[in-house]
Amino acid sequence: MDTTEFRRRGKEMVDLIADYLENIEQRTVYPDVEPGYLRSLIPEEAPEDPDTYEDVVKDIERVIMPGVTHWHSPYFYAYFPTANSFPAMLADMLSGAIGCIGFSWAASPACTELETVMMDWLGKMLKLPEDFIAGTHGQGGGVIQGTASEATLVALLAARCRAVRMILASDPQRPETGITSKLVAYSSDQAHCSVERAGMIAGVRMKKIPTDQSDKYAVQGETLRRMIQEDKAAGLIPFYFCATLGTTPSCAFDHITELGPICNAEKIWMHIDAAYAGSSFICPEFRPLLNGIEFADSFNFNAHKWLLVNFDCSTMWVKKRSDLIGAFKMDPLYLKHDHQESGRYFCTDNSLFRSLKMWFVFRMYGLKGLQDYIRKHVELAKEFESLVRADQRFEISADVVLGLVCFRLKGSNEVNETLLKRINNGRKIHLVPCLLSGQFVLRFALCARTTESRHIREAWRLITQLAEEVMQELPH
Amino acid sequence: MDTTEFRRRGKEMVDLIADYLENIEQRTVYPDVEPGYLRSLIPEEAPEDPDTYEDVVKDIERVIMPGVTHWHSPYFYAYFPTANSFPAMLADMLSGAIGCIGFSWAASPACTELETVMMDWLGKMLKLPEDFIAGTHGQGGGVIQGTASEATLVALLAARCRAVRMILASDPQRPETGITSKLVAYSSDQAHCSVERAGMIAGVRMKKIPTDQSDKYAVQGETLRRMIQEDKAAGLIPFYFCATLGTTPSCAFDHITELGPICNAEKIWMHIDAAYAGSSFICPEFRPLLNGIEFADSFNFNAHKWLLVNFDCSTMWVKKRSDLIGAFKMDPLYLKHDHQESGRYFCTDNSLFRSLKMWFVFRMYGLKGLQDYIRKHVELAKEFESLVRADQRFEISADVVLGLVCFRLKGSNEVNETLLKRINNGRKIHLVPCLLSGQFVLRFALCARTTESRHIREAWRLITQLAEEVMQELPH
Repeated sequence: MDTTEFRRRGKEMVDLIADYLENIEQRTVYPDVEPGYLRSLIPEEAPEDPDTYEDVVKDIERVIMPGVTHWHSPYFYAYFPTANSFPAMLADMLSGAIGCIGFSWAASPACTELETVMMDWLGKMLKLPEDFIAGTHGQGGGVIQGTASEATLVALLAARCRAVRMILASDPQRPETGITSKLVAYSSDQAHCSVERAGMIAGVRMKKIPTDQSDKYAVQGETLRRMIQEDKAAGLIPFYFCATLGTTPSCAFDHITELGPICNAEKIWMHIDAAYAGSSFICPEFRPLLNGIEFADSFNFNAHKWLLVNFDCSTMWVKKRSDLIGAFKMDPLYLKHDHQESGRYFCTDNSLFRSLKMWFVFRMYGLKGLQDYIRKHVELAKEFESLVRADQRFEISADVVLGLVCFRLKGSNEVNETLLKRINNGRKIHLVPCLLSGQFVLRFALCARTTESRHIREAWRLITQLAEEVMQELPH
Repeated sequence: MDTTEFRRRGKEMVDLIADYLENIEQRTVYPDVEPGYLRSLIPEEAPEDPDTYEDVVKDIERVIMPGVTHWHSPYFYAYFPTANSFPAMLADMLSGAIGCIGFSWAASPACTELETVMMDWLGKMLKLPEDFIAGTHGQGGGVIQGTASEATLVALLAARCRAVRMILASDPQRPETGITSKLVAYSSDQAHCSVERAGMIAGVRMKKIPTDQSDKYAVQGETLRRMIQEDKAAGLIPFYFCATLGTTPSCAFDHITELGPICNAEKIWMHIDAAYAGSSFICPEFRPLLNGIEFADSFNFNAHKWLLVNFDCSTMWVKKRSDLIGAFKMDPLYLKHDHQESGRYFCTDNSLFRSLKMWFVFRMYGLKGLQDYIRKHVELAKEFESLVRADQRFEISADVVLGLVCFRLKGSNEVNETLLKRINNGRKIHLVPCLLSGQFVLRFALCARTTESRHIREAWRLITQLAEEVMQELPH
């Protein structure tokens, strides 16, 4: 395919995408296929000679679409939102064409520099403490990661490195493996599974701090303090705590104003994972949820979830860039360049020009446009919440703070599991469950950019209708 | 921006991209900016109200382009190629619009399934042993990672998990931290820095196996065998060896036909990192370089380097999918679905629909088109090699096997460093160096899809001209 053909096919693809998104609600949101459906629809090997482009495009509807879960359908309420906006898509097209790999400043200065400045823009939108802003002289700053899982791991590794160095500084003879085997990290029992996985990867002990419903599934200072004391008494070395603002099951918020000072006093690295909720902090009315950030060493949320910046764009800030650079520094000759020692920029892995989409989105929406978008989702969640509360058969299972509503039929887990299965098998809307205090709960997450009140009400009609069926069939 | 405006802006962007790539050789390949150049060109904060799209587009030339290293210019010979093709860009546009996150089969069945089948297609193109093909009943198969660094780490973690389990099976009382502290992994002293970093992340000892020029910078079986014996005698537990096919400095190939049987006998996980060279194995004449693959537990290369599939698409195969799944399995309720237990599909992290671009590229080029592309780069490298060899002032520093030529002026490191600095400051072509046996060497890597013989010859004219200047200025 040469440039001339690309001009033609590219424009056709723009229309195909526009058509897809314009008509997405007419598609079945959750696909009706069995595992293995796709293999039989295409050849077993790549062609020797090229296929025609027409055939490739035809296969999008024949092979791909029947197996797509349509995350951007206004009937999609599963997991958490993933961002999808036109400005971000335009930026991604450009990023793909420039196609530079930003593993150092010299590999593409614009790539590294725009990232640093966009992270400052976003940091200021969130009103992060000055420590987290790079500016021209700051010690801290932001870097884009692929996912929140990556950010959690990066923070854990930097924390491990810092802890080992601190101990070696006071006891240089101590063997490093002897230190690592005594380290202990903490997170909430509501934390995302990737936090536990980060501990496995880093080969350190990771303890879950119990939460309970009476405290809204949040970690309390007192619980952390007690675990630290017990672990220290047992000869362990507490070094890392991953707080969550907006947990995956129920969007619960750990008490970081209590937890932060404890971590600081104990020289424990506090990382804050606000993967979903972080985007909302650009609104003054939700910013108090981030109070306590001043105690954190690192903070992360996924702009690619709820801030209209397409995947992947997990935004992470640290107070000391040197903590990250020190933990990962590798300097083979093929990566050296004249400005190596400026120390102003850091990037922890290969990536494309991801900051371009932040730039396009922030400029095309403006701060106000982004705030409006967040507020609209929260309002829709509140609307859904009041529909649930108005129906005596249902209950709300956790505080509705942002765009997630956790609810269930009053009754057994079985009846709720059956209801959810019925909902998903109907394929008109798509939800996933969670467990809260042993109860099977349905999660209704506002996801698509185009969701309106009428979709919410339609979803609720469907849910109550299926609930009626289920309750008639199942004995109470 | 609504759909109607996206149709218009998207088509403009297609033209902007086509113009950029069509005229890329008229741009300065390596930017002439100082660190910090960008910050002063844009506001310090995001706008409250939206900017116009026209202003955003204008800033691409004003703000971004002056700081871009043009990886797809035919005058770019640095690092290794990164893929850039029109079919891949079209697929990425579609992938961005579908915007599904493929962390489980149910999150988008087409995403997971196409990935498995495309990895089979590519595995067959490489003539991988049947063990690595998923098919409908295989135990092995492929999965797309973001980078080779990720693949190396994933393999190392799976190996660590397998090693610990094997030891615990025979000695269940042994504490796990006691095992980890005894583990030892190996790689070549020519391996990419990310291999060493993987060891740091996983918290295991990683030893570099010495290579030397007389053996073309390859790891020999005898050297590995000796290190294993010594380490075992010292009470360590060898568990992982990362072989490299096509090292970053000089594209050297470890002797995997010798190394593989040693690893198998010692129950050491052998991972093969062929990040750059792997793409060439689709050509029968280069496939012998992969002989010995049958001894490997896992194998990886970057289709996003040399196989025309845009970043990111690092393709990784394992003989036993269960080894990976076992090392990472996490199953919170919100990720459960009806087909959880089919065990047919596995994905280790969040990602977009990356297999779409493999599908588009394989079909639009066909196997023959891809082979032609690889062969053309190798021919151009051979052409450059013969230009170097015909000039008595220069020497070739390592065998030219694929698309990389390592060369230098006969003489001191200083004179070569000066030459390289002069080349890069001239900004007509861009190269990076490497160290081979203490010698400072210039790497000439065939990178851009559009590089032709005339570019190679022009580059050589420039290099010899600058070499002349440098040699006249510097005392020998």
